[in-house]
This record gives sequence, structure tokens and C-alpha cells, in this order.
Amino acid sequence: MADQRANALQYARSNKEKFLSTFKEILAVPSISTDKTHMPDIQRAAEWLALQLRNLGMQKVQLFSTTQSPIVYGECLGVPAAPTVLIYGHYDVQPVDPLDLWKTGPFEPTVIGDDIFARGASDMKGQAVITLKAVESLAQTGGLPINIKWLFEGEEEVGSPNLEAFIASHTDLLACDFAVNPDSGMIGRDYPTITYGLRGLAYFELRVFGPAHDLHSGMYGGVVHNPANVLAELIAGMHDDAGRITLPGFYTSVRELSVEERQELARLPIDDKHYLEQTGVPGLYGEAGFTANEQTGARPTLDVNGLLSGFTSEGSKTVIPTWAMAKLSTRLVPDQDPEEVHQQLLRYLEQNAPDDVRWELKTLTGNPASISDRNNPAVQAMAKALESVWGQRPYFKREGGSIPVVGDMQRLLSVESVICGFGLPDDNVHAPNEKQNLPTWYRGIDAYIHFFMNLKPDSNGR
Amino acid sequence: MADQRANALQYARSNKEKFLSTFKEILAVPSISTDKTHMPDIQRAAEWLALQLRNLGMQKVQLFSTTQSPIVYGECLGVPAAPTVLIYGHYDVQPVDPLDLWKTGPFEPTVIGDDIFARGASDMKGQAVITLKAVESLAQTGGLPINIKWLFEGEEEVGSPNLEAFIASHTDLLACDFAVNPDSGMIGRDYPTITYGLRGLAYFELRVFGPAHDLHSGMYGGVVHNPANVLAELIAGMHDDAGRITLPGFYTSVRELSVEERQELARLPIDDKHYLEQTGVPGLYGEAGFTANEQTGARPTLDVNGLLSGFTSEGSKTVIPTWAMAKLSTRLVPDQDPEEVHQQLLRYLEQNAPDDVRWELKTLTGNPASISDRNNPAVQAMAKALESVWGQRPYFKREGGSIPVVGDMQRLLSVESVICGFGLPDDNVHAPNEKQNLPTWYRGIDAYIHFFMNLKPDSNGR
Repeated sequence: MADQRANALQYARSNKEKFLSTFKEILAVPSISTDKTHMPDIQRAAEWLALQLRNLGMQKVQLFSTTQSPIVYGECLGVPAAPTVLIYGHYDVQPVDPLDLWKTGPFEPTVIGDDIFARGASDMKGQAVITLKAVESLAQTGGLPINIKWLFEGEEEVGSPNLEAFIASHTDLLACDFAVNPDSGMIGRDYPTITYGLRGLAYFELRVFGPAHDLHSGMYGGVVHNPANVLAELIAGMHDDAGRITLPGFYTSVRELSVEERQELARLPIDDKHYLEQTGVPGLYGEAGFTANEQTGARPTLDVNGLLSGFTSEGSKTVIPTWAMAKLSTRLVPDQDPEEVHQQLLRYLEQNAPDDVRWELKTLTGNPASISDRNNPAVQAMAKALESVWGQRPYFKREGGSIPVVGDMQRLLSVESVICGFGLPDDNVHAPNEKQNLPTWYRGIDAYIHFFMNLKPDSNGR
Repeated sequence: MADQRANALQYARSNKEKFLSTFKEILAVPSISTDKTHMPDIQRAAEWLALQLRNLGMQKVQLFSTTQSPIVYGECLGVPAAPTVLIYGHYDVQPVDPLDLWKTGPFEPTVIGDDIFARGASDMKGQAVITLKAVESLAQTGGLPINIKWLFEGEEEVGSPNLEAFIASHTDLLACDFAVNPDSGMIGRDYPTITYGLRGLAYFELRVFGPAHDLHSGMYGGVVHNPANVLAELIAGMHDDAGRITLPGFYTSVRELSVEERQELARLPIDDKHYLEQTGVPGLYGEAGFTANEQTGARPTLDVNGLLSGFTSEGSKTVIPTWAMAKLSTRLVPDQDPEEVHQQLLRYLEQNAPDDVRWELKTLTGNPASISDRNNPAVQAMAKALESVWGQRPYFKREGGSIPVVGDMQRLLSVESVICGFGLPDDNVHAPNEKQNLPTWYRGIDAYIHFFMNLKPDSNGR
């Protein structure tokens, strides 16, 4: 075993130039999913991936057509005693505008110093090619030590409209022991990172209705409860002075952090200064009693995402508006349930909305939080892999956002995802001059070689 | 004197048909000031008024051109011992759309039953012609008992952009003892009404700035004070549970209602049911301890006129907005000052806005409240006139809105305005099927005859 591991790492070391040129091939394809005129490029990228899978010796390689971009599948199930890993990826990329801010062509991959610049370099063609090249290194040095299934979609950047239904209708095909999701990044180039928790979301639209039509604020100001004022009062009441959310029962299902987990999160090299710099706010805010990393990763929040009422153009109009609207969303943590939060918000409104207005609450979207057990064998295999490459224990991070596919796989395939990719915070993801740091990229390939080897039943993990 | 009064009233009675046909002449002119294509009609209406004034024997009749609609002036100063009254009016009208909802042509004045239907019938060609015909009745039966100046503008429906400057630059020409403003109405056809108070206005735009750019609510939700939430908190804090405004010192300058004035306002035949019907709200709201008529007329208010922040289109976007904006205005009562209120709002924000956001307050417009002494001779002359015609003491009303020209005349000419017109609440002002009740209109002419007679120095008023 040690032999194959060493041989595969040696293969990767010897083929750096070849790996890079494969990476450049796919970076040159402008597979922008938001733009219908790029549908031929989407198709080209999907076919390129299918070819890679075939070259790796994968079976059942095929493109499943959807209403938009094809889904690429392939598998290699040659080691009955070993676990089966489902590797997720997406081959579509964000649009490139504003084009004039790019220093190199977004689809002319260009190495400058340690970085390769191109749209999709970090998000996530770079991460996808890492998994391909790790598997190639193993395939070329004795064969895969485990079973692998691949699932590439081409619609991630447009909200994956077809993915959930595809998974739901292909649960046998996609059956596995756990999933791997490399659509992720590291805290910094010296900080190997595993994301083990994602927050959920419950998103609402609240509308408060006052008078039957806009009123003259002179004639009626003083006898009518202005729906915009009422909306402000309702929103203000949703937090207390300690920054805690006041919806009745909101914290009942919130899984509290253990002392051990708080210590682990405290290791993260992300401090208040980082948040101040990234956001540009004059001061941080949050639920009393928790650090910034805990607040963003392990605690639920309630944010206004939008407000609209009455007259909003330039100048003044003395109107009492007939309605006021807020988009409101809560970020959820285990073990909160979006529907439970919906009921809590309803109860809050029933208890607090005055009788002199009417209101209406709509749920727009919701998904629960997800969390992996940091002690499960797959996560431990990745932790050991990262430690082998970086020479230090990785950081365990709870991400504040959601990755819907992780929830889909949990719900539909009953599997957890190991979330580990090699993007960096300054990669300009979704922005001009996207890049991938190449030394980190090569380390990522090594890490995935170790990871797959660590998963082999008789491996002792190094 | 009694003879002239009786003769003038008799003249008016005998010339009803002729008066009505004059009224129809001006109603047929589509003098819509919001629509540039109607500028020839504006000009025609101004010239028609000038001709009327000349026919009444007025001196110095002329059109003053402005950047838009001409101002019409005329005077008759033949009674040195008597007071000089400046009569204000506007000859422009609102647009007519939606045209398909009109039952008769908006510029084809049509009498149906007791009403005449046409755009401008109530607002305010009808009221302007009342003053012309009252003066004609006196001029034809012995001459004017007082001195009169007329000031007609043609831009009231577009916010009188040229009026203030005209008054400011013609203070000698317009010098008078008091003004009369018939651009007003009655509470109901059996309730003669004098408006003696108007609320002022201080209008602001408040902007709260949070992060330097929109943030992902997953990545940063929990450590950033969302500016939309902060805005809601600031707005909510501006009222206490009793519906009182919490800006520091806000009520210090508010002139309290005397017992006598409260009794007078309690006479007004306008109850909560009226406000519920007019607004369509499920329940009334307001400052505790005051009736609806007091709340709308004699107490200051603070209303949100508009809200805007973040994502407001259909669907969901998980953004922490970079800023949030509210249009906020306070209706002022004597003796509040708009600039004083601006300072109070600034102090409130300084005391209550958290340090983790930035904010900016702009003043958009402001004018103080105005109030007439109900015991001043001009108001008393009008009150007696109304009582002579309707056989009952008139109602004294404080209007919730502002009439800027009343404030302009107070400030620039140092005169109060007697505000008394004969529109009715169901006249469909600014709406399709505008009308003027004709029996009320004829009574209005009689009332103005009495009023002018009552102003004569040796009159004993009847």
C-alpha cells in the first residue's frame, strides 16, 4: 500500500506540466451557464469531462440531458470491499463582466507567478481537475483503491434547477457511502480546511397592509397606523438588545456548541480584523457571548434582505403608503427546521402585529442546516490526508452559507458530504481576474491521493 | 348699507343663469398644467380671467409671465378707509385620466340634478368664479365696499414653482390687510366651514450605511449589523407605546389646545367612522389622549413615506444590503419650527444609531404650520357671513395638510389668510367625474357678498 501511495504521489510530481495543460484545456471553454448563447460551450465542457472520465477507465460514462445543461456521470466500482465515494462537481462558470477589469482574457488561461488566471480557475474547474488528476495518479499506479462515482452538473451558477430532481430519480445509480464536495476553499494557503457544517435557510416575504390606497399624510397623518412604521416596529422587535432573536421558541432546537467544538473553532485563524476588512463596516455586531466564527458558522441569524414601501424616488411625496414589504431570512443551524421557524415567525406576528393593520407572510425558500460528524471515517481520512501534505492538523470550519446539493444528498441519498477544496479567499471568485494558486492546486492533488488511499479498508492512513 | 347688501343678494338671485353660463365658459377650457401640450389652454384661461377682472372694473389688470403659466393680477382700491383683501386663486386643473371613467366629457360642463360635472368644477374654478360673481354683485349695486386685489396662478397643480418668487418680488403690489383663500371646502353641504389652521411639514431622507458592498448573508450574517435592520430599529424607536414621538424636545414648542378650542373641534361632525371609511384601515391609531380631529389637525405626526433597501424584486436573494433608506416626514403644528425638528431628529439619531453603522440625514423640504386667530375681524366677518347664509354658526377646522401659499403670504406679506371655499368631500377632486354642488355654489356667492359687506368699516355684520 505504501508503495502505491508513494508511486501515485511520484506520478503526480512527474506530470505537473501535463496536469496543468489538461487544466488549461477546460479553462479555455467559456461554459457560462447564465448566458444561453454559451450553450454550445456548456455542451463542449460536458463532453470534455465525459472524455476525461472515459480516459480514466470509468464505466457507464454518459451525459444525461436536462432542460438546460447536461449532467455527466461515470463510475468505477472495482473494489467490492472498499467504500463507494460520490464526487460532486460543476463545470459551469460565472459570467465575466465587467470584462474591461480583466488583466488577461477570462478564457485564455494565463500563468503569472504562482497563479493561473481564468474564469472558473478556482470555482470550480480547478477543484474538479484536482479530483480527476488524483484519480489518474492512482489509476496509473496500480488502480483505484476504492469505488468512485462522479456527478458533474452544469447549472450550479444558476441555482441548480435540475439537480435535485435528477438525484431524486437516480438514487440507485448514485447510491454511495458518502459524497465528496470540493466546491469549497481554504482559510488561507497555509491552513488546510475541512468544512463540516453549513447553515440552512428560511426565507420569507412579509407584507403589511394599511390603508386601502395611498393616503395624503397631511389629511390622515395621526389617525392611521402607517404600515411602513408598523413593519419597522415588527422588524425591530425581532432582536433583543443582546442581538438574540425573539421569535418564540427560536433557540429551542438550536444545537449548542460543545466546549471541544468551541476550542476547535477558536483555532481558526480568522479574527475580527478579517471580518472588518472583508465587510468594511465600522464595527462588528452579533449575538452576545459568541465569537465571530461562532456567530457566522454555528449560530442562527435573522436578516432583512430587502425593504420596499411608498415613495422611493428622488424628492419628496407626502404619502402614507398602502403597504410595506420586507424580505426576511433566517440562517439556520442544526437542529432547526425551516417549517418550524416559519411557524415561530407566524406566532411572533400574531402576537406582535397591531390590530390596525393587516399582514401576510409568504415562505419563499427553505432548507435545513447540515453538519458532518468530524469523527466519521471519511472526514478523518481527509483530515489525515491534509495533515500529510501540509504537515499540520487541518482546520474544521462551519460555513455560514448553504450548499444545497449537500442537503439534497443528505435527504435523498442519506449520505454526508466531505467538503474540502483548495480555493483561497483572494481568488476573486465571481469577480474579474479569478485565479487559482498553483502550488496549492498541486498540493490538493496530493491531498486527494492521500484521501483515496486512506479510505482503503486496510489503510492505516498517513 | 343694508340696502346694498340686499340689492347685491337680489342681483345674485336674479342672475343665477348668467352666473352659471360664465362658470361653464371657464370649465370648458382644459387648462391642465401638468401637460405642456395644454399651454395654449393655460394661456386662454389666464386671458379669460383678465377679461373678467376688466369687466368688473379692476385696474392694473395684467398677465405676468413666468417660466410656465402666467400669473393674473388686478386691483380695485377705491375705498381708502376700508381694508384691502388679497384674493388668491388658481385657474389650472388636474389631468383627467383615466378618461374612460368619466360619465361626461371633463371639459363639457354638464348639469345633472344639483351638480355640475367638469374637471376643475370644485378645484377650484368653481371657488374662483364664486369670488368673481360676489364682487360683480356688489359692483353692479353701488360699488365695492372694500379694496380688492386678485392673484391667480396657473401652476398650483404642479406645486406652484413660480409663486413664492413672484410674491417675494411683488410685495408692494400685493400689500394688503389679509388674504382670502377659497381653495378649500366644507365638511358637508350643511356644515359651513372655516379652516383656521394648517399643519406644517418637515421632510427628510435618512440613509443608513452598513457594509461597503452587498454581502452574502450566509458568509457574514451574524457579525454585521444589517443596515435595514438598524433602519427599522431607528424608525421603531421614534414612537413610544402611546403613539407619541420620542425625538428629544419634540413636543416642547407644540401649542397645546385650549379647553375652548377642543370644544370647538369636538363640534365637527367628523367621527371615527368617517376616518375608517375614508382610509379603509381595520382600526384607527394615534396619539393617546386626543380625538381623531385633534390628531389630524392639531397634533404633530411622524410618518414613513418610503422605504428602500437591498433586494426587492420577486423571489429571494440572500443579501445583507449595503444601505437602507427611509423617507420620513413630520407634520408640524404651531409653534414648531422645521429646522428645530431637524435638529431634534439629528440628536435622536446621534443618541440612538449604533456605532456599527454610518448614517446620513438630508432635509428635503420644510414649512412651518400656520394658524389664524379665530377672533380676528376678517375671520369673524367670514363666520358671520356663513351664519347669515346657512343659518348656523360655522365649523372651525384645522386642516392636517399644508397650503404653501398661505405660509408664503404669512412670511412674505405678513398677512393671515381666511380659508373658506365651498367644495364638498364627495366632489371627486383629482379624480374622474369631478363636480360642484350648485345650490352650495350659489350659497357661496351669497356668503362672499355678506363677507365683503361685513368688512366695510361701518358695517355691523349680519
